[in-house]
Amino acid sequence: MEIVVDLKERSYPIILERGALKQCFKWIKSDRKVMILSDEGVPKEFQEELLKQFPNSFLKVVKQGESSKSVDTWAECQKELLKHRFSRKDCLIALGGGVIGDLGGFVASTYMRGIDFINIPTTTLSQIDSSIGGKTAINVEGVKNCVGAFYQPKIVIIDPNVLKTLNYRHYVNGLIEALKAGLIYDSSLFELFENGDIEKEIEMILYKALLVKKDVVEKDEREMGLRKILNFGHTIGHGIESYYHLHDIYHGEAVALGMLPFILDEDLKKRTLAIYNKLKIQSVVDYDAEAVYQFMCNDKKASGDKITTIQVKELGKAMLVEMPLEDLRKVL
Amino acid sequence: MEIVVDLKERSYPIILERGALKQCFKWIKSDRKVMILSDEGVPKEFQEELLKQFPNSFLKVVKQGESSKSVDTWAECQKELLKHRFSRKDCLIALGGGVIGDLGGFVASTYMRGIDFINIPTTTLSQIDSSIGGKTAINVEGVKNCVGAFYQPKIVIIDPNVLKTLNYRHYVNGLIEALKAGLIYDSSLFELFENGDIEKEIEMILYKALLVKKDVVEKDEREMGLRKILNFGHTIGHGIESYYHLHDIYHGEAVALGMLPFILDEDLKKRTLAIYNKLKIQSVVDYDAEAVYQFMCNDKKASGDKITTIQVKELGKAMLVEMPLEDLRKVL
Repeated sequence: MEIVVDLKERSYPIILERGALKQCFKWIKSDRKVMILSDEGVPKEFQEELLKQFPNSFLKVVKQGESSKSVDTWAECQKELLKHRFSRKDCLIALGGGVIGDLGGFVASTYMRGIDFINIPTTTLSQIDSSIGGKTAINVEGVKNCVGAFYQPKIVIIDPNVLKTLNYRHYVNGLIEALKAGLIYDSSLFELFENGDIEKEIEMILYKALLVKKDVVEKDEREMGLRKILNFGHTIGHGIESYYHLHDIYHGEAVALGMLPFILDEDLKKRTLAIYNKLKIQSVVDYDAEAVYQFMCNDKKASGDKITTIQVKELGKAMLVEMPLEDLRKVL
Repeated sequence: MEIVVDLKERSYPIILERGALKQCFKWIKSDRKVMILSDEGVPKEFQEELLKQFPNSFLKVVKQGESSKSVDTWAECQKELLKHRFSRKDCLIALGGGVIGDLGGFVASTYMRGIDFINIPTTTLSQIDSSIGGKTAINVEGVKNCVGAFYQPKIVIIDPNVLKTLNYRHYVNGLIEALKAGLIYDSSLFELFENGDIEKEIEMILYKALLVKKDVVEKDEREMGLRKILNFGHTIGHGIESYYHLHDIYHGEAVALGMLPFILDEDLKKRTLAIYNKLKIQSVVDYDAEAVYQFMCNDKKASGDKITTIQVKELGKAMLVEMPLEDLRKVL
């Protein structure tokens, strides 16, 4: 399947196809230099699969994890490109999860003021979340994503087969973003989770989740309004993640917890909990509500003593609701 | 005078006005945080003039010279912005020559994926050369401008009065870019150099030179074709600069030397030499032709054994001519 993200002269296709990793040469011009950026957590056979398709390529492997989204690693990648004498016509392929996509996109956007960037996400979360949006970034002084660029890839290639190597918790971590997309925008996607065989339907789940994000981002590329609904579950979720220092809880798990208080319809909440159960996601975890609240007060979306929350009253429809920060205490 | 650079949603005005530095508050919203980036070579009174117009501003002064276009200084600026808790709505003003404009533009383009960038160039060269084009960059591993972004300023403010503090050689350094603009695109600008009192006509000279660049860049923002004519004199010029290690000769002086062999009309060449004489620019300097030739072989515009040169056969008209690299030897 193919989805075209329509951003005028910056439009690009997303290829969604089982086995796509083995056929990248069909979509990416190979008569130029290619840097493949990946990390230690990505299976070696995926990296080799790409290397052999591009005769003029080399592999750069960085450490796994958020610490690679640094000024140092970014500068190191620039030096690699210089060492290999890359010109403006050459390209960078990111092969990995969200960290590699964010880092690789920012490297590509700034080398020679921009070379072609190709994204091949290898986790459920990055396949859904970072294929669309054009956000690239690194972290500085511990502040997440504070330095970066809006930069669109030339093409995104999603191969659902690569997900087989993920452990189950990582696999589900990304699916929660798809479930979120269903809750805020597409009831048929939600119902797929409710009634379908998730493993078998994974391609359709990814497809529908991508369509939601595509539609929202096309309407609001620079996050001025509508795009905010994609943050559903994230305000409380980020608070819980910060509380757990981003270690003991995964992003999706925290978002799952963060969505519950803002599903206003009791019946819909019950249906959502049944899906959590099916996916083996916890619906209650232990945390200090006051500490989580304090983290939320530092959220980018807070201004003064108010905060914009996203709420779902009816399946497939989200609303932005500004509320006093204080009131968030009550829902924790 | 005001020139609007028309790049659709990225359009911006250039204000060209004697005394403009004292009135920046008229054009720049002051109800937000402002970082003023400058260097040790910029007169302190200019920096203070700006500080007092913006109640929420702070000054960041870096070392003068090319060494400040580094990853380290760029990252240092990002940290300053974080320390002062700048949001996406705040802004950065670059007050200085080309180095400060290039560095400041790249900092602004990447902090929070882009904040408002305002350019107040203080040298003849930067007033003419870096007000239009949207090129921002730093140097990595000694490779000039290899990392950066295309990023347009919100406004450029040019105050010809600030040029009074430049020494004469620096002053003329930038004027040569204006003379170049006349040669390739605007005979009336060339004639102003021939017949006018340059000191008195400086505003009109800047204005006409900016119009040339505006026209060319609007037609070719990403340097795909026409924009290359702005490189007139630069192929040989860069070779001579490299030979002198960028120290003993100024950019404009090298460009002046680089233009002469490619003014094909003998009468026009004589008229140009008379202007050099009036401006006290050397038309001959001592260099090792073979060494300069070797530097040119590494030029970005060279590909294989050919190079694209810019030549002027008739006043105000330039042509792109591809020629064997070897033939460049003969004109040195």
